[in-house]
Amino acid sequence: MTKKVLKFGGTSVGSIDRIKHAAKIIKREYDKKNKIIVVVSAMSGTTNNLIAHAESISKKFNKRELDVLLTSGEQVTSALMAGALTDLGIKSKSWMNWQIPIITEGDHSNSRIVNMNIKDIEKYLSKDGIAVIPGFQGVSKSGDITSIGRGGSDATAVAIAKIFNTDSCEIYTDVDGVYSSDPNKVPLAKKIEKISYEEMLELSSLGTKVMQASAVQTAMMHEIPLHVKSTFTNRKGTEIINQENIDYKKVVTGVAYSKDDAKITLIGVEDKPGVAADIFEPLSKNDINVDMVIQNISADGKKTDLTFTIKRQDKNNAASLLESNNKIKYETLQMNDKVSKISIVGAGMVATPGVTYKMFRTLAEDKINILAISTSEIKISVIIDEQLTIQAVKKLHKTFNLD
Amino acid sequence: MTKKVLKFGGTSVGSIDRIKHAAKIIKREYDKKNKIIVVVSAMSGTTNNLIAHAESISKKFNKRELDVLLTSGEQVTSALMAGALTDLGIKSKSWMNWQIPIITEGDHSNSRIVNMNIKDIEKYLSKDGIAVIPGFQGVSKSGDITSIGRGGSDATAVAIAKIFNTDSCEIYTDVDGVYSSDPNKVPLAKKIEKISYEEMLELSSLGTKVMQASAVQTAMMHEIPLHVKSTFTNRKGTEIINQENIDYKKVVTGVAYSKDDAKITLIGVEDKPGVAADIFEPLSKNDINVDMVIQNISADGKKTDLTFTIKRQDKNNAASLLESNNKIKYETLQMNDKVSKISIVGAGMVATPGVTYKMFRTLAEDKINILAISTSEIKISVIIDEQLTIQAVKKLHKTFNLD
Repeated sequence: MTKKVLKFGGTSVGSIDRIKHAAKIIKREYDKKNKIIVVVSAMSGTTNNLIAHAESISKKFNKRELDVLLTSGEQVTSALMAGALTDLGIKSKSWMNWQIPIITEGDHSNSRIVNMNIKDIEKYLSKDGIAVIPGFQGVSKSGDITSIGRGGSDATAVAIAKIFNTDSCEIYTDVDGVYSSDPNKVPLAKKIEKISYEEMLELSSLGTKVMQASAVQTAMMHEIPLHVKSTFTNRKGTEIINQENIDYKKVVTGVAYSKDDAKITLIGVEDKPGVAADIFEPLSKNDINVDMVIQNISADGKKTDLTFTIKRQDKNNAASLLESNNKIKYETLQMNDKVSKISIVGAGMVATPGVTYKMFRTLAEDKINILAISTSEIKISVIIDEQLTIQAVKKLHKTFNLD
Repeated sequence: MTKKVLKFGGTSVGSIDRIKHAAKIIKREYDKKNKIIVVVSAMSGTTNNLIAHAESISKKFNKRELDVLLTSGEQVTSALMAGALTDLGIKSKSWMNWQIPIITEGDHSNSRIVNMNIKDIEKYLSKDGIAVIPGFQGVSKSGDITSIGRGGSDATAVAIAKIFNTDSCEIYTDVDGVYSSDPNKVPLAKKIEKISYEEMLELSSLGTKVMQASAVQTAMMHEIPLHVKSTFTNRKGTEIINQENIDYKKVVTGVAYSKDDAKITLIGVEDKPGVAADIFEPLSKNDINVDMVIQNISADGKKTDLTFTIKRQDKNNAASLLESNNKIKYETLQMNDKVSKISIVGAGMVATPGVTYKMFRTLAEDKINILAISTSEIKISVIIDEQLTIQAVKKLHKTFNLD
């Protein structure tokens, strides 16, 4: 007997037919005598519609009420899924987060799961029932409805897998796994059979939408094996597991890119201690996340240039914060939002010398100018001209034998 | 200082603009230093859409899950309304029924409110906050989500008015009060300024959609003054109050009609004790509500004809129950679903002789055949040919000086 969490994302439950189809997948697992907890997202489109409603009421819609509003989406899917399973002759019941309860801490729209009562659901599972739980939501210690951020259904699934000590956590989605690059743009991209948590984490952070980063992180901390599969095909999917269980044959596992970055360069900044702190303080206070930072060595020891990247949506806010702050002195502010970030990710990189050189050489061959660089143990990211994104990704994909 | 319940129906919160408009009405009452509890329905269309979803999953969708599904509608409106009030600078907060809690008893889809914890909300009101509560829903003693039937938001509003001991309960809707007849069909229909609970109850039961009957009944039992008003105009509306507080100038208060009836006649039924009970037993067991019953006197003391009316939606079910039951003996079953029910309602009727005669005379003048009759202290209903409905209603409206 195996205990499993099966999580279905928004597109997998995006219509009545898809909910019925997902119910059949669940039945297949149930018929194999697995104990099953189902976690569902809101039907695709629902959350965006509700957000649009809130925004047309107020540009600063109350955050507590936004959680009450948005969590209705997963409530709907849970009821429909439990109803669909019942219709297939399976004992099934939905549990709202307050009924369990799943206790969260932290701010509205950005809570994290800290505790969960498993007794009633364990009992129900032992009597061959399937529990259906809405993802994304929780209840605070004071009894308010909370949510754990966009994509939070993954976090719910992993937290449930952890607390119920399940054997696996299967993430059903609209792609059939994690690819070596975006299969829509890089036709030669291949599905990765096994990937480490660390690599998946880098890919998630880089914009690969397969799984939410913080959910992968929780799975990594508690060594919960994840399995990303397509709801719409019967193919094998991608296992996200411990690095030591993977036999690496390639240095680089995948090439990712994102187009939502912007680059700001401050020219003629004073080259003295504390200046960088002064510059990043107002950004940090306004929740603007700075990604890469490059500071050139100043020629005269007096003035230097400082370049950093942020999310494109923050660019105007960042620029006006810098311009309006008298403490920050510089000559010119240059902004470029026609940039993209290209990253190569691979756990094999750390043991292989020359990967960085190989990446830069490849881009240089195509005369692609590198505007900024950042590296980690298993990742190298560069900022380049947005127009050259796909060309660069394809070239790197080939260079690192991923085609 | 006055304490009020303000209830907004589905069309009154049917769009974002309407929610904003309703929020302004609430603000106006709040600015007059009233303590306010708002009760909201689901946005118009939402409940029907959700029901359609459930029905496309299963013809017998699980009733527990249906309540989980449908109550999401009022949750959405509550959050949007609390958000809209906050945006107007008013302290406001939504309370889901499980957060209060509002405890219900009875079956899913058909629960009734039995208890409510008022402490937290009273405290919030005393600190000048406006509480927003979703109508229609509750939570059972075992912690399941329940609903109190279609139109149940009225019942929630009245129950809250009762338990919080408010000074009034204002029902905001898409009509500006209760009319002497359907103003869409009878142009001379007039708004009734004051109507008794009993009359309103008859009108509600007869299909006047202004208020749900059981809510009126609760208000009557606890003498809670109701005030039905339009969300869209500033007119005075209709007060629903104790009969003794009304100065009746007219015998008949209103003329109502419904077109959802069907008439079944069993010809050649044995005329002996227990036959009627045998006939109505299977109908009752299948939740088919029999409205009027007419049994003709048998000429020979052996056979008679029995006529009764039911809701049109039940007609096929009723006919097959009668036909398949061997205990029930009759010669022919005649069904007529092209009928409508016309009713005159008025608390003044009981003290005025000849009202029945006057009604029948009026219909006879237009050669309108009466197929069945039923009377109560304050109501006379007749079944007639459906085609003649509006003609009959207009004529009666004139006869009883309502034009």
